[in-house]
Amino acid sequence: MIVEVINTGTELLLGEILNTNFQYLSRHLNNMGFDVLYQTTVGDNAPRMKQSVLHALERADIIIITGGLGPTRGDITKDTIVEICGLECYLDLDTWGRIDAFFTKKGSCVPANNDKQAMIPVGAEILQNDVGTAPGLFICYQNKYLILLPGPPAEMTDMCEKQLWPLLEKKFGSQGIILSRTLHLRGIGESLTAEKIDDLIIEQSNPTIAIYARHGEILIRLTAKAETRQIAGAMLDDYEKLIRKRLPQYIYGVDDESLPAILGRKLLENKKTVAFAESCTGGLASSLVTDIPGSSEYLLGSAVTYTNEIKNRLLNVQQETLQEFGAVSRETACEMAVGARKLFTSDYGVSITGNAGPGESENKPVGLVYIAVATEKVVYCQEHYFHHSRVENKLRIALTAISMLLNKINQENDLEE
Amino acid sequence: MIVEVINTGTELLLGEILNTNFQYLSRHLNNMGFDVLYQTTVGDNAPRMKQSVLHALERADIIIITGGLGPTRGDITKDTIVEICGLECYLDLDTWGRIDAFFTKKGSCVPANNDKQAMIPVGAEILQNDVGTAPGLFICYQNKYLILLPGPPAEMTDMCEKQLWPLLEKKFGSQGIILSRTLHLRGIGESLTAEKIDDLIIEQSNPTIAIYARHGEILIRLTAKAETRQIAGAMLDDYEKLIRKRLPQYIYGVDDESLPAILGRKLLENKKTVAFAESCTGGLASSLVTDIPGSSEYLLGSAVTYTNEIKNRLLNVQQETLQEFGAVSRETACEMAVGARKLFTSDYGVSITGNAGPGESENKPVGLVYIAVATEKVVYCQEHYFHHSRVENKLRIALTAISMLLNKINQENDLEE
Repeated sequence: MIVEVINTGTELLLGEILNTNFQYLSRHLNNMGFDVLYQTTVGDNAPRMKQSVLHALERADIIIITGGLGPTRGDITKDTIVEICGLECYLDLDTWGRIDAFFTKKGSCVPANNDKQAMIPVGAEILQNDVGTAPGLFICYQNKYLILLPGPPAEMTDMCEKQLWPLLEKKFGSQGIILSRTLHLRGIGESLTAEKIDDLIIEQSNPTIAIYARHGEILIRLTAKAETRQIAGAMLDDYEKLIRKRLPQYIYGVDDESLPAILGRKLLENKKTVAFAESCTGGLASSLVTDIPGSSEYLLGSAVTYTNEIKNRLLNVQQETLQEFGAVSRETACEMAVGARKLFTSDYGVSITGNAGPGESENKPVGLVYIAVATEKVVYCQEHYFHHSRVENKLRIALTAISMLLNKINQENDLEE
Repeated sequence: MIVEVINTGTELLLGEILNTNFQYLSRHLNNMGFDVLYQTTVGDNAPRMKQSVLHALERADIIIITGGLGPTRGDITKDTIVEICGLECYLDLDTWGRIDAFFTKKGSCVPANNDKQAMIPVGAEILQNDVGTAPGLFICYQNKYLILLPGPPAEMTDMCEKQLWPLLEKKFGSQGIILSRTLHLRGIGESLTAEKIDDLIIEQSNPTIAIYARHGEILIRLTAKAETRQIAGAMLDDYEKLIRKRLPQYIYGVDDESLPAILGRKLLENKKTVAFAESCTGGLASSLVTDIPGSSEYLLGSAVTYTNEIKNRLLNVQQETLQEFGAVSRETACEMAVGARKLFTSDYGVSITGNAGPGESENKPVGLVYIAVATEKVVYCQEHYFHHSRVENKLRIALTAISMLLNKINQENDLEE
């Protein structure tokens, strides 16, 4: 079954917010075997919204529309669909009661606007909203299906998890599976990656293989379509093996295995702990590591030392070192890493010192960063250059530091074996 | 002139990556007065990409297509456009030289794949790529304009900044201006906000007013269309004044004035400094503050104290406090804030201790967080509950801490005046 997703909202069209809803919906629909072939964004404009929905009805079987179910005047999705389908609406008392309870629990009265959210088209199945006030709707129209979902991501995902995915499973049964697997690579560029696996990439085949770059990494995405998850998984296993033979040293993770998740697993396996000493990343490296639940088992802390004085006082970086080489130097990075290890009494200390930009600092170029990893016996240090915006640089620097630590942990384990 | 943006790439359709390119393009095009009315995502599939482009040619004047200009087999955008427009291609030596230089500078040979990127349709204007290898293209076809841009965000934005925006200005002149202004509010919900300004929200008028929620905040977006930036700006000024009268205490910022940016300005104005003591946010609060260039003027550092032992050793949180009340408590939060202030010798100390989830901790509920702000004379502490995923909670907690600090700084200044 072909799915089109229409994300409504002038804030989306104007570029005020990022479209995270589509990413969520698409991933889940694909996992369930639905072919998501079209995505459209349209503003809070009745004629254009109507045109988009009519166009979607021509080319898709299931049309999912997010947004525009709120209590304000700009929320026009339900009215647009009701007009297209020629439906009447009624006041649903159960929905009304839930909206009332929502506000009562917060100690407020129900604003007058919200009653429009309890008007339900005749024949629609109601998807109740446990996080906000707008119910979702599942409408059958001329052998097609229109599904209306609230725009706020937390409301939409909760409604999908609890109600829509089970409903789609029940109504449409198994769609076969479209299964994707993504290999994450560091240390190699896009063209060279493509060269190494060019003969495996046969257009329109099954599985398909695609390559793309993100935040200083390369991703290889394999997509297989099959009757069952098992068959699709086996197809992916075969191609993953082939690709790993060609690019063994670059692949560091699979699917949602982010660097922080893999680091956490490695540290737990080896019963080791880590602490950070961060300057230009400002806490981002340890924040990424602590995105992983259970990270308190291996992350002892981080010292964000933004001034030379605090580098000296907290991490014991020598005044002479700072004076002679500056904060952005190998020497300072090494002393910071050793200092972090000692301060937090961790197995590993990781330090980051550099200039994320945009301005120069200490006469050192923008983008110059030193990352050091201290173990019990030795300190490693690498020099890097980063070429993007301050915020993008911070992210790439933090990921590079985590990657460097992972490499050192793996090296240590290889030596021991 | 009406613009449609088509973002190509199966990785987008499959939900593997977020569509940040559209957000960038739309913001800039709107600022220049172009009406971005349609956005479509389509995969690396020739028939569907062709269908999308043909559909766009019916309803828009300018069609911007991102992605699919790479060297791999999956990159089919140029071929699709060339087929639609019936164009021949030639090998452009200048482009070929640039691609060669790109790889030479990195010390590599040019992979064989990349020569396809130097094939240029006859009559197309070339937009050179200073960050990657794929040139962009500007093609005139039957009184419409097709603009092909590379997919990787850094390449696309660089090409737009340096070449596309000046080119559009030159070719189409002034389009009038569509100017947006966004007011940021904290401490009030969406429905109540709508109620308070309901009479100002007149559908399809100019300026339009829209309300939406994000990361625990409310945003009110005003959009005005006029001949010149000056006239549009004046229209926005009028409505901003009206709205501020209705909601004075909730509006904390305008447009890109993020909480970290406003905090930075306030601290600089008052020549004050801050340090953080973070537990569950893991460094995210200080990382957000350091996203702002120049933050080293007021952010002295952060102690990410993930264990009780380090809370005691680094921040001087008393053992008795931790034993009696636990790490997630008012008492610990206050001692952490005072400790951060003393450790970094800053004017303000901000602490965050709590449980971002998903698991319970110390028999304290998921989402319970204490945030404290220590000044020279007093420590304030607030209790909060957060209800989202771990990563979303961390973000909301960090923003709440920055917001609380801002409020305290403002209160102190009010008292002094």
